[in-house]
Amino acid sequence: MNQDYIKPNNWSIIEEGFDAEHVKSSESLFSLGNGAMGQRANFEEQYSGNTFQGSYIAGVYYPDKTRVGWWKNGYPEYFAKVLNAPNWIGINVIVNGEPLDLYTCKSVDSFKRELNMAEGWLSRQFKATLPNDVQVEVSVKRFLSLDLDEVGAIQYKIKPLNKDAEIIFQPYLDSGITNEDSNWDDKFWDTTDVSHLNHQGFIEAKTMKTDFHTCTFMESKVFISDKPILVNHNIIADSNHVSFSYAYPVKKGDTYSIQKFGGYTVDRNHDKSKLVKVAKQVLKTATKKGFNQLLEDQKQAWSKIWDMADITIKGDIKAQQGIRFNIFQLNQTYLGKDSSLNIGPKGFTGEKYGGSTYWDTEAYCIPFYMATKDQNVARSLLEYRYNHLEKAIENAEKLGFKNGAALYPMVTMNGEECHNEWEITFEEIHRNGAIAFAIYNYYRYTGDYSYIPEKGLEVLIGISRFWQQRATFSSDKNQYVILGVTGPNEYENNVNNNWYTNYLAKWCIDYTLEQIEKIETEYASDFSRIAKKVTLSKKELALWKAIADNMYFPYSEKHQVYLQQDGFLDKELISVEDLPKSERPINQKWSWDRILRSPYIKQADVLQGFYFFEDQFSDEALERHFDFYEPFTVHESSLSPCVHSIQAAKLDRMEQAYTFYLRTSRLDLDDYNNEVHEGLHITSMAGTWMSIVEGFGGMRIKDDTLSFTPKIPKQWEGYSFKVNFRNHILKVDISQKQTDFEILCGDNLEILVNDKPLLLKSKGLHAVS
Amino acid sequence: MNQDYIKPNNWSIIEEGFDAEHVKSSESLFSLGNGAMGQRANFEEQYSGNTFQGSYIAGVYYPDKTRVGWWKNGYPEYFAKVLNAPNWIGINVIVNGEPLDLYTCKSVDSFKRELNMAEGWLSRQFKATLPNDVQVEVSVKRFLSLDLDEVGAIQYKIKPLNKDAEIIFQPYLDSGITNEDSNWDDKFWDTTDVSHLNHQGFIEAKTMKTDFHTCTFMESKVFISDKPILVNHNIIADSNHVSFSYAYPVKKGDTYSIQKFGGYTVDRNHDKSKLVKVAKQVLKTATKKGFNQLLEDQKQAWSKIWDMADITIKGDIKAQQGIRFNIFQLNQTYLGKDSSLNIGPKGFTGEKYGGSTYWDTEAYCIPFYMATKDQNVARSLLEYRYNHLEKAIENAEKLGFKNGAALYPMVTMNGEECHNEWEITFEEIHRNGAIAFAIYNYYRYTGDYSYIPEKGLEVLIGISRFWQQRATFSSDKNQYVILGVTGPNEYENNVNNNWYTNYLAKWCIDYTLEQIEKIETEYASDFSRIAKKVTLSKKELALWKAIADNMYFPYSEKHQVYLQQDGFLDKELISVEDLPKSERPINQKWSWDRILRSPYIKQADVLQGFYFFEDQFSDEALERHFDFYEPFTVHESSLSPCVHSIQAAKLDRMEQAYTFYLRTSRLDLDDYNNEVHEGLHITSMAGTWMSIVEGFGGMRIKDDTLSFTPKIPKQWEGYSFKVNFRNHILKVDISQKQTDFEILCGDNLEILVNDKPLLLKSKGLHAVS
Repeated sequence: MNQDYIKPNNWSIIEEGFDAEHVKSSESLFSLGNGAMGQRANFEEQYSGNTFQGSYIAGVYYPDKTRVGWWKNGYPEYFAKVLNAPNWIGINVIVNGEPLDLYTCKSVDSFKRELNMAEGWLSRQFKATLPNDVQVEVSVKRFLSLDLDEVGAIQYKIKPLNKDAEIIFQPYLDSGITNEDSNWDDKFWDTTDVSHLNHQGFIEAKTMKTDFHTCTFMESKVFISDKPILVNHNIIADSNHVSFSYAYPVKKGDTYSIQKFGGYTVDRNHDKSKLVKVAKQVLKTATKKGFNQLLEDQKQAWSKIWDMADITIKGDIKAQQGIRFNIFQLNQTYLGKDSSLNIGPKGFTGEKYGGSTYWDTEAYCIPFYMATKDQNVARSLLEYRYNHLEKAIENAEKLGFKNGAALYPMVTMNGEECHNEWEITFEEIHRNGAIAFAIYNYYRYTGDYSYIPEKGLEVLIGISRFWQQRATFSSDKNQYVILGVTGPNEYENNVNNNWYTNYLAKWCIDYTLEQIEKIETEYASDFSRIAKKVTLSKKELALWKAIADNMYFPYSEKHQVYLQQDGFLDKELISVEDLPKSERPINQKWSWDRILRSPYIKQADVLQGFYFFEDQFSDEALERHFDFYEPFTVHESSLSPCVHSIQAAKLDRMEQAYTFYLRTSRLDLDDYNNEVHEGLHITSMAGTWMSIVEGFGGMRIKDDTLSFTPKIPKQWEGYSFKVNFRNHILKVDISQKQTDFEILCGDNLEILVNDKPLLLKSKGLHAVS
Repeated sequence: MNQDYIKPNNWSIIEEGFDAEHVKSSESLFSLGNGAMGQRANFEEQYSGNTFQGSYIAGVYYPDKTRVGWWKNGYPEYFAKVLNAPNWIGINVIVNGEPLDLYTCKSVDSFKRELNMAEGWLSRQFKATLPNDVQVEVSVKRFLSLDLDEVGAIQYKIKPLNKDAEIIFQPYLDSGITNEDSNWDDKFWDTTDVSHLNHQGFIEAKTMKTDFHTCTFMESKVFISDKPILVNHNIIADSNHVSFSYAYPVKKGDTYSIQKFGGYTVDRNHDKSKLVKVAKQVLKTATKKGFNQLLEDQKQAWSKIWDMADITIKGDIKAQQGIRFNIFQLNQTYLGKDSSLNIGPKGFTGEKYGGSTYWDTEAYCIPFYMATKDQNVARSLLEYRYNHLEKAIENAEKLGFKNGAALYPMVTMNGEECHNEWEITFEEIHRNGAIAFAIYNYYRYTGDYSYIPEKGLEVLIGISRFWQQRATFSSDKNQYVILGVTGPNEYENNVNNNWYTNYLAKWCIDYTLEQIEKIETEYASDFSRIAKKVTLSKKELALWKAIADNMYFPYSEKHQVYLQQDGFLDKELISVEDLPKSERPINQKWSWDRILRSPYIKQADVLQGFYFFEDQFSDEALERHFDFYEPFTVHESSLSPCVHSIQAAKLDRMEQAYTFYLRTSRLDLDDYNNEVHEGLHITSMAGTWMSIVEGFGGMRIKDDTLSFTPKIPKQWEGYSFKVNFRNHILKVDISQKQTDFEILCGDNLEILVNDKPLLLKSKGLHAVS
């Protein structure tokens, strides 16, 4: 644990006392987002200390030219990354000619930040003595509206405490911003117009290369003691900046405040010639409601989200705070309104990993969104990949595949591959399987088969064609093999016959063949539409089947386990606990070759297969594999502990399950890996949710039936969660003594509890969406 | 074959006719070097077409900051590269106010370039019509002195053909140069002083970071019809440039000429405060001799080199030209005068691969230098590595090795690793073995054991310690394994148990143990000196032996061959000849993952082991392995065909041997890989020499005896070569009918010819060095 300055609290993230060393971490932890835009918790006023400035607009990216040491055929030419967008939150504050800057103040007292997760706002209070000895008290509140997702609002209050002072508020917009994570120091934004009218400012800017047109806008209003006043304002505008100055002689003890509304309109949603016009409409709507009413709406909107998504934990306030933080951040990042968006691993909290889409979405996030939102949200995430199918086929063609084989990218913004290490980009192909698995998982959970004939089957066929072509026949083994891959455990590169990949490939083909048969019989018109597009011959299908039926799986008779890959047993099998502490984390202490030849596992690999396909293995097999692989797992990925937590719970090892759970739930709050200043681990937060619902709660779908095997860590008094299952909202409340199930909404439902049927009676309530 | 514009000629490389498309290729092919400096065949006068400017000073490099996509622990921070040095050859020529520029001339006729390999000079003639319609005839000759290796000389003659013309010669120095191959567009040179005196100019410049101080200098003199004249000269000097203008009204038909002497003095050889002073002395010596005498000396110096190193081929002029080109370039690159220098893969002909040292030196170049020079030259090359031993130990420490284990770098200038792909830098560790093998090979050939107790043993111990620590015990195999390596075939990365690497590791340990025993007994004082430094315990040596005695070698019972690595037989074993031509070379047509999972071999790997350790395998085993691996070998490395040529000759497959020979000997002249514009493949040229001497000539050392099994391609009438063997200069002359051996110098010598002893009688001549 690298930090512990966050106060335990059920519903809020709270920091007390100002420490310049915490600024970058807190900027990540206190980030705001509303699915459409977001920003790090940068201060509104000037700050000359260490800071990482970041504002982001969903879906607006830049293709940064790839930088590699040695170019290899097939590398993508660029690496799409989320862009630091023009800043609209800035308000310089000048007190008797001196800028307020917490880094240069003589003293800062009673500093407090709060991220109120129940209501979706961020506040900050402090008292400070400026270098010119003026003492001021400041209170700021900020939120990004969920209802009007193009706008955010700030209320900034300042009170001189020891003397009268002339105070200037300088709200501004700035498009002269840079990305920290830029390969070639390119300029990413081209500002095309800066304009202003009365108290409104507008900057139109477009991204270089991708040509996203945006308008960043603001409108401000000032108050004395909460009463609006009219102040003459000076306007400064230059090529990428516009600011208004509101100067006022403030009496000691009086509160001078400003309300600033701002945000973005983007040509992803509007005609690019009308962005300013739309911005004006947005401002009109927002200012008409006013700060207080918008905030009231915000509370309602978050209340609605929590009503469905909350998990309560009794008797463990840090665990409670951790899980809510995870759920809150997931909802800040993605709300499922737009199927061209997805869930970036850092959300709106940083630049690293480019804010792009990874297989994290399919493997970790979809279960969370399926259970806590309308099923259309998960369907949108599936459609995102359907819409990228052509690009996935092109991507496979670049690597030499033919005939409509599809390889989905490791990292993407628009469907094109944007990663540039051969061992990942070209070889970590199991990602393709996760995309197929999510289609199966969606149907398994929602019961909505319609997606498969409508869209899913085409994706499945592209993926199966890839596996068929990627597998090769080994005369030596007389079986099909898959050579040269990287599994989920990225601490192995270019291995042969990664069990997880081989298993997934076989499963994808088998599953696709089943769907083809079903759709041919039951959805004839869909089938004939698809058949026209993809022309499947009997010969081709027979070849798929031959491969799936005769796939090689590395296995150790001695250990009775599937081997992570060929040759795994040649390693020095020293368990993690026998490694000196000083040598961990190995990814910071060891050279890459040493990591590769070690047995250490970055994140679940064979066990990921046992997680996806649990039904296909006995509990004894799970236990054997868990006992074999867990001791070599270093969990140096944020995505690792949750799968182990779920499996430990299933194996009735609740102490171990709880330990893994803690590692995932407070990963960022406690900054386990000393990297939270770069942003939060958004996608792994869904894994935390899974650890409780699937791990402790034991939720599964068995033959269309919702099933639970409830367990509870001894550290907790109780916990509860809700799930949306096929138009039923079910509440599960687990204590040390008992488990209560309740249908909050929907008809009667028969579920399984510890494999025994239980009929839950409807209360007659039904959801109104 | 991508070009065929070079005229066949026994002793010269000749280009006729001007083609702007050939300029960059010819700049490589016609490069000059004298071991201390070199340059591409850039024109003296201005040229506005496509050109690759390059002048190089031996041992002067720059640490370019490493550029990678994703940083991995252990990567070197910089990549040392050979620097484009200040230009001293430039002479702008202005005719009636118009610059002579072959790219803009109305016509260029009778263009001819000649690189005279017998005498070591480059000439160029042409007639051209300038845009202002002045017709001129130009003749240029240039060479870099072997005797005074800090100076070169240029004679530039011009004759106006159709009218009188004012002609200006503008000889200049320029340090405002760049590298094509720069990672971050850094400035590599800092010019500290520009000065001139009479007809002499000097630029002092130091390299950034490495702080090599250099003085680039020139002195010029002009002539009418070969008579020196005095012309008023204007001087222009700025921050990184100095030029003199010699204007003269030249009558139609008269020849105006300039002689320019220039070069570098460097603080690698002189006190840095005296570089200008030394430059003046060099100029004094050179101008006192004059252009013609210097050229005469040059012819003598090259005649002496050829006297020992020449290979004659009768009846095949292209083969003759090819082998002489190779021998010429090797001698232009490295002459063995300075043990801090080595043989860069591009010599002085380009920037790619950074002009650094690779294992090419030990595996391919040392045999050539041992046989054609004094044995001290090869000893210097061994000492180069001895001097880098501390750095090799540091390099191993960076990767987690201890106790004096040494890992020599894959690429180096000063002993530090300068390569930055993990699969090469960290894993292509067989290079360590080649360095040990060269020590053995030096003793085998020269009989000079003294190097081993004096220096070699310490290197051998460092290398053996590395192997001991790098091998690990596989409980599964009950043998030692070496995991995660890249063999000589770089089309496989991160494989387990590469047979060549395992074999070499075992051999290194066994050989080192033998030397320790011998030196302990026979060289007690050396042994006690070494033992103080390295403290070898019995326990450590026992561990070495346990590993060497129980090393695992992948083997196929079915094919009766050692396997290139674990799992090789799982590949789709389709031979190269069954690959569509359109898919080759695979390194340009296939993505990297596809190459990796294919069976295709870039250069000899298992067969490299059979080349090094031929004595340890039967001819039948060689044949079996050759027949197994050759069909999968794509020879996409310049270092590949020579080993196959030697082995084909040994197996009496002379047609195949000859085909491989052709591929290596005219690789650059015929530009097989369409890359000669980037520079020549210097180190592989030594492989061409080996193909003749060891391949066709069958030269080996068997138990201290020189042995031959002479063969001859049916395309040749005869061929001859000389070797320096233990103070005997032996000439071998092979025709279709017979082989003649002659001792040119030295005592009687008993050799083996086709395994039968033959006594060669001395003529009583002995070498005077």
